[in-house]
Formats: sequence, C-alpha cells, structure tokens
Amino acid sequence: MTPRIQVAVTGADGRIGGILRNGLSDRFVPRWLSRSDADVTNLAALERAFAGADAVVHLAADADAYASWDAVLPANVIGAHHVFEAARRAGVGRVVFASSNHAMGMYMWDDDRFADAQPAEVRTDAPLRPDGLYGVSKAWGEALGRLYAERHGIVVVCLRIGWVTADGRPPSSTEMRREPPAVARRAPGMWLSDRDCLALIEAALVADVRFAIVNGVSDNVGRWFSLEEGRRLLGWEPRDGGS
Amino acid sequence: MTPRIQVAVTGADGRIGGILRNGLSDRFVPRWLSRSDADVTNLAALERAFAGADAVVHLAADADAYASWDAVLPANVIGAHHVFEAARRAGVGRVVFASSNHAMGMYMWDDDRFADAQPAEVRTDAPLRPDGLYGVSKAWGEALGRLYAERHGIVVVCLRIGWVTADGRPPSSTEMRREPPAVARRAPGMWLSDRDCLALIEAALVADVRFAIVNGVSDNVGRWFSLEEGRRLLGWEPRDGGS
Repeated sequence: MTPRIQVAVTGADGRIGGILRNGLSDRFVPRWLSRSDADVTNLAALERAFAGADAVVHLAADADAYASWDAVLPANVIGAHHVFEAARRAGVGRVVFASSNHAMGMYMWDDDRFADAQPAEVRTDAPLRPDGLYGVSKAWGEALGRLYAERHGIVVVCLRIGWVTADGRPPSSTEMRREPPAVARRAPGMWLSDRDCLALIEAALVADVRFAIVNGVSDNVGRWFSLEEGRRLLGWEPRDGGS
Repeated sequence: MTPRIQVAVTGADGRIGGILRNGLSDRFVPRWLSRSDADVTNLAALERAFAGADAVVHLAADADAYASWDAVLPANVIGAHHVFEAARRAGVGRVVFASSNHAMGMYMWDDDRFADAQPAEVRTDAPLRPDGLYGVSKAWGEALGRLYAERHGIVVVCLRIGWVTADGRPPSSTEMRREPPAVARRAPGMWLSDRDCLALIEAALVADVRFAIVNGVSDNVGRWFSLEEGRRLLGWEPRDGGS
C-alpha cells in the first residue's frame, strides 16, 4: 500500500484552498493552514506548522492581481521566502508554489509597442513579463523556488495558475468587464476550471521532477498559454475548456 | 551640441561607483548618491534625489553574493522597488540596473544533477538559475524593470555584471580560493575589467532600447556567458579579456 502523503496547505481558507478541501484525494493527508494557524510573515510559525509534512502547497498570498506594494511586500514577497525557508528547515521534500499567469501578464496585453515580444504561444520558458507588482512577486517566488531546488534539494513545482473564477464557471461578461480593456481579447482563454485546478495540484504533488514551471489553464478556445510543460513534466491534461 | 545627460548614481561610494567617478565621460552630468544622500529604503528621499535626472544608474545593494536574508531584503529587494518607483514618480526616463551573473549563478556550478540545464553558452534569455538570495534579488530587480518598462514607459537596461575584482585585474589565485569549489572551473571567465565596465554602463545610458538584459563580462578565455546581447542591443564590445 502506498503511504499517504502529508501535505501542509497555506492559504487554505482561500478560493483554491476551498477546491482542495472539497476534492483532495485520500492519497493525501491534508493540514489546512489559514493565517491564524501560520502567518506567512512568521518564519518560526511556518516551520512549526510544516514539521513532519512531506509537501507544502503554498497558496497564501494577496490574490489581487493589481495589489499595492504595501500588500505585496509582506504577503507575497516575504511570505514566499519564509515558506521556502521554513520548508527547508522543517525537512519538507517538496513545495508546490501557486505562481500566476500574471508573471507573464504582458503577453496578454494588446500593445503594439511590444509586438516583437508576442509569441504565437506563451511557453513557460519565455522571458518574464509581469503586469503588476503581484506578477513580479510571483516571478520572485519562482526564482526562490529554483534556488531551493538547486541548492537545497527540495522538489519545487511552480504553477502559473490562470483564472479561477468565483463560481468555477468560465468567466462571465461581468467578470470580463472588470479586466483592463487591453487584455479583453485574450482573458477568456485563461480560465482554469475547478477540477482541472485540483488535478493540476495533485499532479504537482507526485510528479517525478526536480523543478518545473507549468501553466495552469484549461484547454479553452482562444487559449494563449502552452499546455506542453504540464503534459510533459506533470502528466497533467486539462479536461475542461471554455469558449 | 548634444545636451548632456543628467545621471543619478546610487551606491556611488561602492566599487563600481568608483569606476564611474574615475572615468565617466563628460557627456554625462553625474549626481553621486551614497546611502547618506538617499537610502534606498527611503522612497521619498530617492524621489527627491532623482528629481530632474534623465537617468538613474542603480548600483546600491548588498554586494555580497552570499548575503543573508536580513541583508538582502532591505538593501536589494525593497531597494530595487523603491528605485524604480522613485524614478517613475520623478519622471526619470531611464534606469540602468546593476543586476548580476549570480541571477544565473547555477549555470556556473559543476553539478551533474542539473547537467541537462547546462547550455554551451549562457544567454540572457535562458531560465533564471540564481545561486543565492542575492541572485534571487537581482532576478527580482530585473522583473521589476520589465514591469516599469512595459507599464510605465521607462527605458530599463539590466546589466548582469560579472566579476569586478578589488584591484581591477583578472581574479587572482587568492580570490579564486574564496569561491565555492564547484565554480572554480568557470569563475575566471566571469571577469569584467574596469574599462569594460565603464563602457558597458555608458552604452546602457544611451542605447536605443526599451528593455534589455545584457551580460557584463570581458571577453575572457573560458568565458561562459554570452556577449551577443550586449553587442546587438547596446553596441558594446569588451576590449579586455583574462585567461
């Protein structure tokens, strides 16, 4: 019998935490951590919360794609460092880091000043093009992840999560109207369904890799971000797709 | 007559600041800023110090490639944000950011666990592979730079500075012995001579680009990092090379 995998989940009270709470396979033994259990700005609290875990899924962050510096610095920048460092100190073997498509957000932008930088498809190894401080903070977390993978031997999988909507359905016209006009044409292609999100995180928890960056979007009409890395590195294939 | 370019230089009292003080062309009107003039953790002080400048050369940082988190967070992480943001607020049109080869330091590492990640030559668009928190902080600064270039219209040139030695000569055997053994084979190829460093920064101050990341190493025997981007994007060609 395969031993069950002990997984500590930060940001467990957020939207994606809810997807995991509702659906995580019983192959995993979850430890749901909200801010009151282990604030990500408190390194010692994180180390205690991770003790004995096989893996960490790091979801805690200010999730506003256009969050201010004052919000991004503690929750995302310091938080990402402390999660990786606490994982190292606690002897955790794997970190799944919830990165974001916003690390590459400018590829979504319709802007002919940078037309030479718009590839036919956005692969995860293309140059970083964040669209806000939030996106920069996700790029920061990925670079930290690579460091902890290569220098400290932790398996790190960075998931560039797409658009997980409030109700789990493809983005509505109301949600679309809140996005900047420059991304309107491409944003519907960024949807990530709840079940694709769940399967992606579960795949990241068991894949035989050392370090990976993978796009997390369903196979939508108008999809712009590659699925190739997820298939190749995690064996993950989205089952949904919006139009 | 070409108008002279007003340049604010952070970290002007450091090693590279000294190279600029000794040699900067009179095409530029320098404003030498040390920590006592404008601490990089003080956004308002930076904005005042940058007022009226055409360009900023951001050298201020903890320069220890293996600096601790407590040193890197204020000097490099917060500092880089504040410099870009202060430049935006002050209406500065260009920022030259002293990044580092340590953003890609693991390419230097002799480590067969990651042999598949060792290309024949390290181009600047290869995946980030920092070798410490210092290197991660430089990757952070580059991602911020791309954001400020694309969203705020500032020209940003990131220079992945190689090894500027204490006396300006190729690394001595004593300096080499201080490096981790895993990088001994490749480290001599990272030398950047003083006059190549000066010409590189001057080229970055006038090049017709929107955003660029360029390696700053002399044309050394055993050079491992590409010079192609510097030639193509900045018209910069190193004149020196160590063996």
